[in-house]
Amino acid sequence: MSSLIKPQTLKGFRDFLPKEAIKREYTTRKIREVFECFGFDPLETPALEYAETLLGKYGEEANKLLYLFEDRGQRKVGLRYDQTVPLARVIAQYKNQLPFPFKRYQIQPVWRAENPQKGRFREFMQCDIDIVGAGGVDADAQIISCALATAKALGFKNVKMLVNDRLIFGDLPVRFIITIDKLEKVGQEAVVAELVAKGMEKTKATELIKSFANKKPTDSLIELSSQLRKMGLEEDRDFEFSPTLARGLDYYTGPIYELIALGYTGGSIGGGGRYDKLIGQFTGDNLPATGFAFGFDRLIEAMEEMKLMPDINSLTQALVTVFSEELLPKSLAIVSLLRDNCVNSDIYLGANVKLDKQLKYADKRGIPYVIIIGPEEAKDNTVKIKNMKTGEQKSVPEKDLVSLLKN
Amino acid sequence: MSSLIKPQTLKGFRDFLPKEAIKREYTTRKIREVFECFGFDPLETPALEYAETLLGKYGEEANKLLYLFEDRGQRKVGLRYDQTVPLARVIAQYKNQLPFPFKRYQIQPVWRAENPQKGRFREFMQCDIDIVGAGGVDADAQIISCALATAKALGFKNVKMLVNDRLIFGDLPVRFIITIDKLEKVGQEAVVAELVAKGMEKTKATELIKSFANKKPTDSLIELSSQLRKMGLEEDRDFEFSPTLARGLDYYTGPIYELIALGYTGGSIGGGGRYDKLIGQFTGDNLPATGFAFGFDRLIEAMEEMKLMPDINSLTQALVTVFSEELLPKSLAIVSLLRDNCVNSDIYLGANVKLDKQLKYADKRGIPYVIIIGPEEAKDNTVKIKNMKTGEQKSVPEKDLVSLLKN
Repeated sequence: MSSLIKPQTLKGFRDFLPKEAIKREYTTRKIREVFECFGFDPLETPALEYAETLLGKYGEEANKLLYLFEDRGQRKVGLRYDQTVPLARVIAQYKNQLPFPFKRYQIQPVWRAENPQKGRFREFMQCDIDIVGAGGVDADAQIISCALATAKALGFKNVKMLVNDRLIFGDLPVRFIITIDKLEKVGQEAVVAELVAKGMEKTKATELIKSFANKKPTDSLIELSSQLRKMGLEEDRDFEFSPTLARGLDYYTGPIYELIALGYTGGSIGGGGRYDKLIGQFTGDNLPATGFAFGFDRLIEAMEEMKLMPDINSLTQALVTVFSEELLPKSLAIVSLLRDNCVNSDIYLGANVKLDKQLKYADKRGIPYVIIIGPEEAKDNTVKIKNMKTGEQKSVPEKDLVSLLKN
Repeated sequence: MSSLIKPQTLKGFRDFLPKEAIKREYTTRKIREVFECFGFDPLETPALEYAETLLGKYGEEANKLLYLFEDRGQRKVGLRYDQTVPLARVIAQYKNQLPFPFKRYQIQPVWRAENPQKGRFREFMQCDIDIVGAGGVDADAQIISCALATAKALGFKNVKMLVNDRLIFGDLPVRFIITIDKLEKVGQEAVVAELVAKGMEKTKATELIKSFANKKPTDSLIELSSQLRKMGLEEDRDFEFSPTLARGLDYYTGPIYELIALGYTGGSIGGGGRYDKLIGQFTGDNLPATGFAFGFDRLIEAMEEMKLMPDINSLTQALVTVFSEELLPKSLAIVSLLRDNCVNSDIYLGANVKLDKQLKYADKRGIPYVIIIGPEEAKDNTVKIKNMKTGEQKSVPEKDLVSLLKN
């Protein structure tokens, strides 16, 4: 026999065992529902893209985080870094067959070779909505409204969209804008220091930072507020002007947004903005676009912290035990009955196993009900049903079992 | 401006525009439902694994198809090739915290650098169910029963599981077994030729092939049939002994299965089998396991051929048009009303656009209903609803709109 292989995951990558995978599935299902409710249809793109599709879109720092390699045909390829650039590529590639405004959602993993730290992973999921081919603030308002509704549907009571406009930074180079974005987080002194390190004069940097105290919303933002109010959203409660909000990526050109959940301290749970010039990098003609992405891991973390997450170990409602070889057909019939009636259920596998061990197994899996069919039950067409949480046990007629488990 | 980037997908990789993505989402949702109904819980594993986890598990041919590369930390890594080896790794890594028998499903993409041809892609989805830690045929029977039920739930009327046992091939090396698997597809002559090319004597090869006409089911298969019959499945209708069925992967050790949809000529829609020695490659101790994977693309193709697939362009039920700037708040209120009541709906984006153009947009997106609110409707609290398929148009009170669209 060859030597053993150490079972391990790569740094920054994660397995999701059932308990965690159930939470993730619950969350994406809710998110899909709201996205679809708001008129977004699904889109899927490949995990691998030509490297040239990905390079030069996100900014210098991001380029270093791309997973790039040569495939067996010596093509330079890279793993999906976000879902916005693939969307831009899709728009350029199929533009004659798509209806505009084009609205799509996309929920797929992305890969970034970040230095793993708390809450940062090398593989993580994004949940994006975008509207392409609509240049007005009505499109931005739809995106904001959908993002807020999604957070509400997930159970967040107090969420607020911070909004700003990239135009507020005038012709300030992107590398400085990105630094200003950190103002709320790290404070004025640290931001000035970083601006100086990036080549700005200290007096100019200090002045620049101070100027943000007096910044007024741009015309676009005023129009956007008006549209949001028409949609029943309230300024300060649902959205708020935040003049130092900048977003880290190169491609934004107008309104930008970031969603915060009040009470959660881990940072924003999603962000986005308008990127009217990205698609033009493929087509030559600019096509206005705006969108938002939930950071799925932050969202999950925030939901856990705020106790918004179902806390179950298994989706299986009932385990049907096997009393004996002779009674196996009876147990098989009961599990069939449950499954035919859409009660997620299972039958114990293995011959001649003591009931006690079968109960322990149900307990370890976190299955809430156990069904026992002994010789008496089989004769009477009844079953014993045991509530694993309370320990309570009762006999019920077979024909009542389904409705009992469904409630 | 920098030069344009050609928008293109890599050979063997695909974008799924909404019409296709909707079908895929519909199908995975149904599959999940049945898997969960049968007591399987979800599991997710990373797209990237250490190369040594993947190498030496699938066989020589497969090793050539792995996407292997060095990451930025000079680690040798590879993209997920199937979901069985990652499962084996997970079992080894977390075995002390998992309940056994451990049942999980997994629906994620896998990557194989195949030469693209009809129905073969380099990125495709697999839908797996597996039971680990149960060595009896009752586990195999559960897998078979769940796979059949899943196909039924997707609308397939006639599906049959072909079953065989790897033990039927005795100590024949795997490279020959794989060739025999092609017997049904390419015929006796071609198989003999391939066996000879692989180093078998011609007379021995011919004799070997002939011997399959008289092969009898193994004890395991007889026991498995008996268990399946106890579960209400019928021999020949639901399952059938197929002595030349072999499956292409190295790791199988016992019963193997392949699901065929009668009437679909594109080959099997899924397959699996028992692999009692794979997990031992990580842990040293063997742990019995059995499972099945649907080939998602074959499944989709078969469903299309058999007209089992919803044929819609959009999940959006209604487009609310905007008559004028003054009536915009009314349209916004109507779309809010619909969304609050879980009717997937959208509002036309863009100012002062003629109604005709808005209708054309709904048509291009494939949205079945358009809502029109002109000055008269606004005054009367009614809306006009237009069925885009029939062209029929009628006025209804605002308050009846939701229930109308829900039916």
